[in-house]
Amino acid sequence: MRPSIELYLSTLKEIIDKKLVELLPNSPEPISKLQESMRYSILAGGKRLRPILCIFASEAVGGSVDKALPIACAIEMIHTYSLIHDDLPSMDDDLLRRGIPTNHSVFGEALAILAGDALLTDAFSLIGNEGISNGLAPKVVVEIIRDISKAAGSQGMVSGQALDLAIEGKEVSLEFIERVHSLKTGALIVASVTSGARVGGASEDQLLQLKCYAKYLGLAFQIIDDVLDIEGGAEIGKTIGADARKNKATYPLLVGVERARKVALELTEKAVLELRDFDERAEPLRELAFYLGGRKY
Amino acid sequence: MRPSIELYLSTLKEIIDKKLVELLPNSPEPISKLQESMRYSILAGGKRLRPILCIFASEAVGGSVDKALPIACAIEMIHTYSLIHDDLPSMDDDLLRRGIPTNHSVFGEALAILAGDALLTDAFSLIGNEGISNGLAPKVVVEIIRDISKAAGSQGMVSGQALDLAIEGKEVSLEFIERVHSLKTGALIVASVTSGARVGGASEDQLLQLKCYAKYLGLAFQIIDDVLDIEGGAEIGKTIGADARKNKATYPLLVGVERARKVALELTEKAVLELRDFDERAEPLRELAFYLGGRKY
Repeated sequence: MRPSIELYLSTLKEIIDKKLVELLPNSPEPISKLQESMRYSILAGGKRLRPILCIFASEAVGGSVDKALPIACAIEMIHTYSLIHDDLPSMDDDLLRRGIPTNHSVFGEALAILAGDALLTDAFSLIGNEGISNGLAPKVVVEIIRDISKAAGSQGMVSGQALDLAIEGKEVSLEFIERVHSLKTGALIVASVTSGARVGGASEDQLLQLKCYAKYLGLAFQIIDDVLDIEGGAEIGKTIGADARKNKATYPLLVGVERARKVALELTEKAVLELRDFDERAEPLRELAFYLGGRKY
Repeated sequence: MRPSIELYLSTLKEIIDKKLVELLPNSPEPISKLQESMRYSILAGGKRLRPILCIFASEAVGGSVDKALPIACAIEMIHTYSLIHDDLPSMDDDLLRRGIPTNHSVFGEALAILAGDALLTDAFSLIGNEGISNGLAPKVVVEIIRDISKAAGSQGMVSGQALDLAIEGKEVSLEFIERVHSLKTGALIVASVTSGARVGGASEDQLLQLKCYAKYLGLAFQIIDDVLDIEGGAEIGKTIGADARKNKATYPLLVGVERARKVALELTEKAVLELRDFDERAEPLRELAFYLGGRKY
């Protein structure tokens, strides 16, 4: 019998957390101040959504958890780097993340910037090293690196953050907000899914369908995140109402919470529909979509 | 007849500069504020030492300039990202770099951090994309990514910068300074040479010898850089005496300028000696070593 999605998610989260600790560098002082800072943010927790998506996508096309795990961890390292840098005083200037003080509030700005830089760089090291030692074909490793670096760089996540900063306090359209989301969070979510699919040996058709699934899911996820920011962010470890106070335009602030929730649910349904050609091995992806799209926590 | 090393260096610098412009992203506003910031620092110039080393190393084992060029440019992008982040107020707090205002003095801290992040990430994209389209075997592309990411990450350049910040104002030994250099600048210089060598199809023996060459050269280069900082930094585009004012321990500050120059020359000779098994195709590497080791500019 397949475990419930909640149980499966928490089991996977444990496996990912354990692997992340294993993969983080650990050498003697004084370098370890940097490592301590990297470790701090990696171990601060989080839902591990991106690595889980990577593993689920791999499973959906017949791949194993083990083979996808290092790639999944590398993606979480990139996600964590982006959070550390986004929280910096010159960016979003946040003091709280995942329920604990942000990296720079503990280690100072310089080490926070360097910890982010190191996590990003080490992620590519990890994909190169573990990808090969895990039996992936070099061609697949390169494809994964291309997917992830494109999603994270100046055509993806970083440009999303730049846009996000540029529109602070400005009136923007719904379409523009969607564009920022698709760059800032969507691109890496899509790359998490395609990387996992590549590890599992997906066909071109499967890759395309999974990509569409991830696009819808990513947007739904972000809208719900912004809804939670309004309704009460304490449970997600952020300062409540932070977006509104920063005069940051979000989906629910523009259309209202109720409508935003409805859109998120529609997107979730579209995401799941993209998986119609997949068999029961894609069930975790389907359940995850509904779980996230309707989440109330 | 082979051109003089000066002429060859300036020709290559032009080729590299042109290729870098070509490779930088260029899309419509408002993303382009980020791109403008990336472009600003890439086009600020510099000696292009790392890409030139990459190309020379490739030539030394029979590779072509064209094939090494994209990898060489990716390394320069990583080097440039490290300069942008090192110059930030929370790090070295520098206002001048390569003779012009530092990135954050022009674009602000947030965009400077993001431009660095994007250059680093895009560099891996570039290696993945161009490496393959340039006819490199995926296996070689992965090896290059492993070399470069290891050299740049928490076991290399970033930890060197963290150490450098940690020892500011402290008394340290010559050995410790060498260790900081080998991490902060040496590692990427070594990776520039090994990457180029891999592009050119180097044997394991050749790789090892080129690695030793690069280690000696990297240290000599850094010592001479620190000598120039004392003797007059205007020509290298930095504020004169910046290290001493910041109470930063450097090789020449510890042993004196004359002794430091002598050590740099000895290292240069050791570097060149490592190339004894190479034929005349390694001549640019040899000449470059003497040119840098004894440079007075």
